[in-house]
Amino acid sequence: MADVYLYDTTLRDGAAREGVSFSLDDKLKILRHLDSFGMHYVEGGYPGSNPKDLEFFQAAAKLELKHAKLVAFGSTRKALTSAARDKEMKALAASGAPVACIVGKAWDFHVKKALKIALDENVYMIEDSVRYLKKKGLEVLFDAEHFFDGYKDNPKYALRTIEAAAEGGVDWVVLCDTNGGTLPHEVASIVREVHEGMAVPLGIHAHNDCECAVANTLAAVREGARMVHGTVNGYGERCGNANLCSVIPDLALKMDVDCISRERLTGLTDLAHFVSELANLSPDAHQPFVGMSAFAHKGGIHASGVSKETRTYEHIRPELVGNIQRIVVSELSGKSTITLKAKELGIDLQHKPDKLAEILKEIKQLEHVGYQFEAADGSFEILMRKSLGTHKAFFRLESFRVIMEKREDGKVMTEATVKIHVGGRRLIATAEGNGPVNALDRAIRIAMERSFPALKDIELTDYKVRVLDEKKGTAAVTRVLIETSDGEKTWGTIGVSENIIQASWEALVDSIEFGLMHKRQQAHE
Amino acid sequence: MADVYLYDTTLRDGAAREGVSFSLDDKLKILRHLDSFGMHYVEGGYPGSNPKDLEFFQAAAKLELKHAKLVAFGSTRKALTSAARDKEMKALAASGAPVACIVGKAWDFHVKKALKIALDENVYMIEDSVRYLKKKGLEVLFDAEHFFDGYKDNPKYALRTIEAAAEGGVDWVVLCDTNGGTLPHEVASIVREVHEGMAVPLGIHAHNDCECAVANTLAAVREGARMVHGTVNGYGERCGNANLCSVIPDLALKMDVDCISRERLTGLTDLAHFVSELANLSPDAHQPFVGMSAFAHKGGIHASGVSKETRTYEHIRPELVGNIQRIVVSELSGKSTITLKAKELGIDLQHKPDKLAEILKEIKQLEHVGYQFEAADGSFEILMRKSLGTHKAFFRLESFRVIMEKREDGKVMTEATVKIHVGGRRLIATAEGNGPVNALDRAIRIAMERSFPALKDIELTDYKVRVLDEKKGTAAVTRVLIETSDGEKTWGTIGVSENIIQASWEALVDSIEFGLMHKRQQAHE
Repeated sequence: MADVYLYDTTLRDGAAREGVSFSLDDKLKILRHLDSFGMHYVEGGYPGSNPKDLEFFQAAAKLELKHAKLVAFGSTRKALTSAARDKEMKALAASGAPVACIVGKAWDFHVKKALKIALDENVYMIEDSVRYLKKKGLEVLFDAEHFFDGYKDNPKYALRTIEAAAEGGVDWVVLCDTNGGTLPHEVASIVREVHEGMAVPLGIHAHNDCECAVANTLAAVREGARMVHGTVNGYGERCGNANLCSVIPDLALKMDVDCISRERLTGLTDLAHFVSELANLSPDAHQPFVGMSAFAHKGGIHASGVSKETRTYEHIRPELVGNIQRIVVSELSGKSTITLKAKELGIDLQHKPDKLAEILKEIKQLEHVGYQFEAADGSFEILMRKSLGTHKAFFRLESFRVIMEKREDGKVMTEATVKIHVGGRRLIATAEGNGPVNALDRAIRIAMERSFPALKDIELTDYKVRVLDEKKGTAAVTRVLIETSDGEKTWGTIGVSENIIQASWEALVDSIEFGLMHKRQQAHE
Repeated sequence: MADVYLYDTTLRDGAAREGVSFSLDDKLKILRHLDSFGMHYVEGGYPGSNPKDLEFFQAAAKLELKHAKLVAFGSTRKALTSAARDKEMKALAASGAPVACIVGKAWDFHVKKALKIALDENVYMIEDSVRYLKKKGLEVLFDAEHFFDGYKDNPKYALRTIEAAAEGGVDWVVLCDTNGGTLPHEVASIVREVHEGMAVPLGIHAHNDCECAVANTLAAVREGARMVHGTVNGYGERCGNANLCSVIPDLALKMDVDCISRERLTGLTDLAHFVSELANLSPDAHQPFVGMSAFAHKGGIHASGVSKETRTYEHIRPELVGNIQRIVVSELSGKSTITLKAKELGIDLQHKPDKLAEILKEIKQLEHVGYQFEAADGSFEILMRKSLGTHKAFFRLESFRVIMEKREDGKVMTEATVKIHVGGRRLIATAEGNGPVNALDRAIRIAMERSFPALKDIELTDYKVRVLDEKKGTAAVTRVLIETSDGEKTWGTIGVSENIIQASWEALVDSIEFGLMHKRQQAHE
C-alpha cells in the first residue's frame, strides 16, 4: 500500500488549459501511458455532461488497465431533487469507471452567490449524491471546491460540507484550492486542523495562481493528506494545476514518501514529453526535473564543478527521473566547459592545451560580435573541427545571388541562384522560394542532391531571427539560428551578419555540413 | 523602511538562462525599468571577470537611478592571497556601484571537492573579502553558496562561514539554495535556526529545481529573512530562480509584507512583458499574476461565475498587478477596447456600430494570421483610417526589386530598386544597403525625399523579427515590427508574410505613411 496515492487529472482539469484540446484517440493514448507510468487514479472527464467524454469512457472500459483506476468526474446532484433522479448522477454511475469524483461547494459565499440556494440544501446535495454513488458500488471521492477560501471565511460551514460527504460514506475527501490563492503555510495549518477531526482520508487539489501549487501539495502531505491531485506538466486552467512531474519526485526522492517505485519514476521525463507532444505544446525546457535544461550547466564555474563531482551542482541524479546531464557552451564558459563539450562529441582536447586556448579565444571573439553557441551545437562542432583541422567541407561556394521582386500586380517573386564546387565539379542551380532563405535552401539542395542523396532526409525544422543592438534599425546585426533534423538527430546552427541573408546563409551551410558529416560517420560505423 | 527588500538579479542570474543574452543596451534599459518599477537592489553583473559587464557598470554609473541601488557581483578573493591584491576584488571596489555582493562557499564538501583548499582558508577568504570591500565604503552582501545543503551536511561549518562574513562587517547574509534542491519545510526550519543566532539581517536566494523557489522564498520571509533575491519571470539557469513576479504579489497582497507600494505593484505585468521582450522570449501566458491567461476564464460555469462576482473565481483583482480579466471567446471586450483605442486617437467609433463591427472583424482576421497590434499603434491607426475612408496614401507602389549577391571574393552586395508614384509622377530610385530591408528603406527615401523633405527627420529606430509557427523552418510566417521616431514621437508598425522582405516592406510603408501623416497634421495645427 502506498503512503500517498497519485491522482492524475490531465484529461479533465489539464484539458481546461487555453489552447489544449485532446481528441478521443489522444485521451486513450494518454490514459494508457499514465497507467503504465504508475498513476493510481486517472480522471477521464465528465461522462454526465459531455458527449465526447461519454464516448471516451465507453472506449476506456475496453482497455485493460494494469495499475490505474479510471475516474469519472461530475458535480453533486442538482438542487431540490434526488440523486437517483438526476441525469448526471445516473451517467456517472453508468460510466463503467470504478471510481467517481464529485465536486460540490464548500464555501458558503459560493452557495449563496453562485448557486443561490439554501446552505442546508447544498449539504443535502453532497450527502445524497455520495450515498447514491456508493450504493451503486463505486469508490467515491468528494472534491470540496474552494475549501480553503471557504474554511477561512466560515470554517464551520466548510467542515459541515465534508462531514456530509463522510456521512454519505465517501472514500476520500479532497480539499481543493480552486482559485489557487492559498499559500503553503495556510494550507498546512488548515489541513492539520481538518485532519485531526476526520476519519476519512484526505486528498489535496491545488492550483498554481500563487506559483505555490507544488509546495501546497507537499505541505498537505506533511499534514496528513494521502492523495495528491495534479496534471502532467502542470497543465490546467489559468496558471495550471499542481504539476505532478514535480510533486512526484519531490515526494519520492526528497520526502521519502512511498508513492511510486524507483523503476517507474525513471519514466517521468518520457511521460512529460509524451503528454506535451499530444497536447501540441512545446515542452518547457526549464521545467523542473523533466526539462531539457533542468540538468544543463552553463557557467564556467558550475560546469567545472559538475565535472568534478555531480553532487556539487545537481540536486538529484538526472537518471532518477529519466533525464540527462548536458553541458552548455556560452560566453560564461571557460576551458573546462569546452573540454567537456568536446568530450561529449568524441574530441579529445584535454591533452591539447594550445588548441583549447585557441578555440576558447575564437569562441569569445565570436560571442563578442553576437554569436551564441548554446542552441548551435552543430556550428560549435564544426568550429572545433575546423580549428583541429579535421573538418572536411563538402562544397565550396563560388557565389550566390538572390533576387526578390514585388511586381505591379502585387505578386512577389523570390529566386536564388547558387554557384558551388563539389569535388572537381562546378554546379549552378536556381530555385524559387517563398522568401530569400527558403529559395537559397532549395537552390543549394538542387545543386548538391545528386552528389549527396542523403540531403533528402535532412530538413530545416526551425528558423529563428534575433536582431541585436536593435536601436540601429534595419542596419543592426542579425543573428539567425536554424534547427535541422534528419528524423533521428536534431542540431542547431548559427549565423551572424548585418545582412540577414548572409547570416542565414552561414547557418544554412553549417546545417548542411553537419548533417552530411554525421551521415558519413554513420555510414562508416 | 520596507519590511522586506527586493533584490533583482535578472541581469546576472537571469542571464544565465540558456538562450538568453542581453546586449549592453538591453541591460541598461532593463536596469532603468527595474528602478522605476521599485526594486531596492539591482544586480548588474560581474565587473571583475567579464569585460562586457565592466562596460555596463561604466555606463550605468552615469544613470541617475531613483529608487534602486546598483550591485556589482563577484566571488570572494582567491585562496592564499589577500583581498587587497586580488584583481577581481579591486574591480568590484572600483565598479562605481555602491553595493557589492560576493559569493563564497558555505558547504565544506564544496570547499574540499571543488576549491580543493583548507576549510580554514575558505573562512579567511570570506572575512577578508568582506572587510576589504567594507573598507572601500561599499554596502556588502555575502551570498552563502549552497548554504542549505551545507547546513544539512555540516551545520557547524556552514555557520562558521556566515559568521566570518559578519565578523568582516557584512551588511547582509544571503542564504542560497544554489542547487534548488531544498523543500519549503527544510528552508523554514534552517532559516529559523540561523536567524536566532544572527545579528546580521538575512536574505534568501532560491532556485526552482523542485518547483518550490517561490514557496521557499516565502517560507524564509516568514522565518525572518528581510531580503528576497529573484528574477523577473523566474529566468535563470536550469529551472530558473525564484520568480519575483510571483514572490512580490504573494508578499504584498497575501502576506501583507511591506515591500512595494500598491501603485508600483500595478506595473508588474508591464515589467514582466518588457523583460521577456528584451530577452526575445515569448511571455508565458500561464505565468501566475502576469500571464495573459492568469485571469482568463474558459469554462462556462467559471465565466458566468466571474461575471456574477469576481471573487468567486479570482484570487485577487487582476488590476492590482496591472493585468486584466479575460473572458475567452467574447467579443464584448474586443469592441470596447477598440472604441477606447479609437477615442485615444481622436476617432469617434461609438456612434458607428457598423464600422466598429467591420474593424473588429478585420482585426480578428489579421490576428488570426499573425498580426498583433499591441506594439504596432501606427499600423493600427492606419488600418482604422483605411476602414473609415479617411486615410490618404502618400505614394503608390508600382514595384520593387531587391538583389543580393555574395561574390566570389566573399563580398556581399545588396541593392534595392523601387518604382513608385507620388502625385502624378513616377519615381524610380536605387540604393545599396547592408541588408535587403536597409536597402529598400534607403531607396524609398531617395525616391520620396524631394516631395517630402520631412522624411529626413523620420528614422527607423528598431527592427524586430519573429518567426511564427517555427516548426515550418524557413517557410514559416514571419512577423516584422518596426519602430520609428521623428525625435519627438515614436510609433510601431507591423508586417506579416511568409516572405521576410514582404513583411518588412509592409511595416516600412506603414512607418513612413504614419510619420508623414502626423507631420502634415502638425503643419495644419
